[in-house]
Amino acid sequence: MKNFADKLVEAVRAKGSAICVGLDPRLDKIPKFLKMKAVEDTDRTPFGAAASAILEFNKGIIDAVHDLVPVVKPQIAFYEIFGHEGIKCYEETLKYAKKMGLLTIADAKRNDIGSTAEAYAQAFLGETVLFDGDEEVIMPAFDADAVTINPHLGWDGIKPFIEECRKYEKGIFILDKTSNPSSSDLQDLEMKDGKAVYEIIGHLIDSWGANDIGENGYSFVGAVTGATFPEQAKRLREIMPNAYFLVPGYGAQGGKAGDVAVCFGGGNGEKGLGAIVNNSRGITNAYEILGYPEEKYAEAAREAVMKMKMDLAGAF
Amino acid sequence: MKNFADKLVEAVRAKGSAICVGLDPRLDKIPKFLKMKAVEDTDRTPFGAAASAILEFNKGIIDAVHDLVPVVKPQIAFYEIFGHEGIKCYEETLKYAKKMGLLTIADAKRNDIGSTAEAYAQAFLGETVLFDGDEEVIMPAFDADAVTINPHLGWDGIKPFIEECRKYEKGIFILDKTSNPSSSDLQDLEMKDGKAVYEIIGHLIDSWGANDIGENGYSFVGAVTGATFPEQAKRLREIMPNAYFLVPGYGAQGGKAGDVAVCFGGGNGEKGLGAIVNNSRGITNAYEILGYPEEKYAEAAREAVMKMKMDLAGAF
Repeated sequence: MKNFADKLVEAVRAKGSAICVGLDPRLDKIPKFLKMKAVEDTDRTPFGAAASAILEFNKGIIDAVHDLVPVVKPQIAFYEIFGHEGIKCYEETLKYAKKMGLLTIADAKRNDIGSTAEAYAQAFLGETVLFDGDEEVIMPAFDADAVTINPHLGWDGIKPFIEECRKYEKGIFILDKTSNPSSSDLQDLEMKDGKAVYEIIGHLIDSWGANDIGENGYSFVGAVTGATFPEQAKRLREIMPNAYFLVPGYGAQGGKAGDVAVCFGGGNGEKGLGAIVNNSRGITNAYEILGYPEEKYAEAAREAVMKMKMDLAGAF
Repeated sequence: MKNFADKLVEAVRAKGSAICVGLDPRLDKIPKFLKMKAVEDTDRTPFGAAASAILEFNKGIIDAVHDLVPVVKPQIAFYEIFGHEGIKCYEETLKYAKKMGLLTIADAKRNDIGSTAEAYAQAFLGETVLFDGDEEVIMPAFDADAVTINPHLGWDGIKPFIEECRKYEKGIFILDKTSNPSSSDLQDLEMKDGKAVYEIIGHLIDSWGANDIGENGYSFVGAVTGATFPEQAKRLREIMPNAYFLVPGYGAQGGKAGDVAVCFGGGNGEKGLGAIVNNSRGITNAYEILGYPEEKYAEAAREAVMKMKMDLAGAF
């Protein structure tokens, strides 16, 4: 049966790259001409103007990279900081990316107890039951193709997401070994049986996804494994042969192509599958890194993606 | 120095109760007259109408209980399910609660790597840097008094929240032993040294909060410990003498007054301090439970709070 991982595989094949563009907008990195335009165009509140500038920025990035990458991943914290206006911009960013033929991962790292996780799962992947007078109306809220989730609450909090994935051909990526330095505080603790917590989580993710493996040998239950910890990622690749890996930490956080190579593999064994490598700042801020004028931020982003594509191609 | 925990202590003393009212609205439990009013009043979208009905509902609950309880805790999943309209309702609910003299806990269970956690911390507790033409404008997005956060990413993800807490007299409650049945999947795993993961988290929370203990002996770094696991909560009370406990799981989830009694204590030793006990469905759906007509949902909520107050008073 075809599942989200199969859709991802098709997109990776079609675009010829395993790159995920992280859309994590910071207002101080949004070109000034977009901010001025947002203020001039509207009688918006400062929150609304910021959200409007960011949406324009995101559209420019999406236009510039949509034929080169299979997927984008907007990090919702950078939208929540603008309140409901930011969330509206988040919705519109997801919608525009989808329109331009991209898959979307809502990087939200949500979770909670079962009944609450159900609401998150419906919000991000499924549909919301509404009303219009006496009639029931059903509409999606965010309608992302996949969402990142946190495993801390165990199976209760995972199950509702799996149900929405089955119903709507969607996917999840569960945090396992994250890319930040202090991920070791809890994730590397050594258990009684000698395993580390991240290994236990790997086994859990493997079992949680075991009933939903698609045509290409990958489950729609994926894992987040940071590029900054290649040894742990290598071990996790062994533990989870059927999980697609979402790999943050490449670029600004220090992860190199050689580090992410170990994340690929599993599934049907086809080269270039099994992982998507995220890059946020390295692409969206490329105009600064490459010394371009800010008006050319989209061209710079395209150039950064092409450079990353070459870099990754040489590594495996 | 006075901190968020001291503000909480003052509110608990003033209201004479340690009850937190969870505002977790489910559309199928919102009285029909409020839904009809929301549709008639406006030319809103279905999402907007739902959000409008929920805001009216929340205001009714807040009006009915604000003199009896120190704090309310809206669970953001039940707002996100309505997209940006839901988030607007979330903002307005927080604002109204504050206006009515209540402290607010944003139950969002957020976290991420450091730079992203910083955005979440600013969104929920701090302020957002915006612009108006050439001028910088600074405004808060959600401006909750406290937020729940997830410890899975370790210290990196905690530090930015602590910085906002210091700056704005705010608080955090870090998930430790959650109230759901499968919290045991990860939180109860036994470590090499014989400790359980939830105990390790307890020691971490204790150390993370050690530099920020207020006048009453409590840190602004609190912990979430479910009423459904009294033995573990008792152990955590010993490990974290300076943490205020946010205790979910009372009522609908099965936790009893005797179970939550062990969560109190610590700090300056004053009776009735050290824990706030959350009840969501037991209060907001009291009209169903008590067999009231739905028009009297607010009166029913007040009655449920008074009953809970008596129940808790008898237990310690």
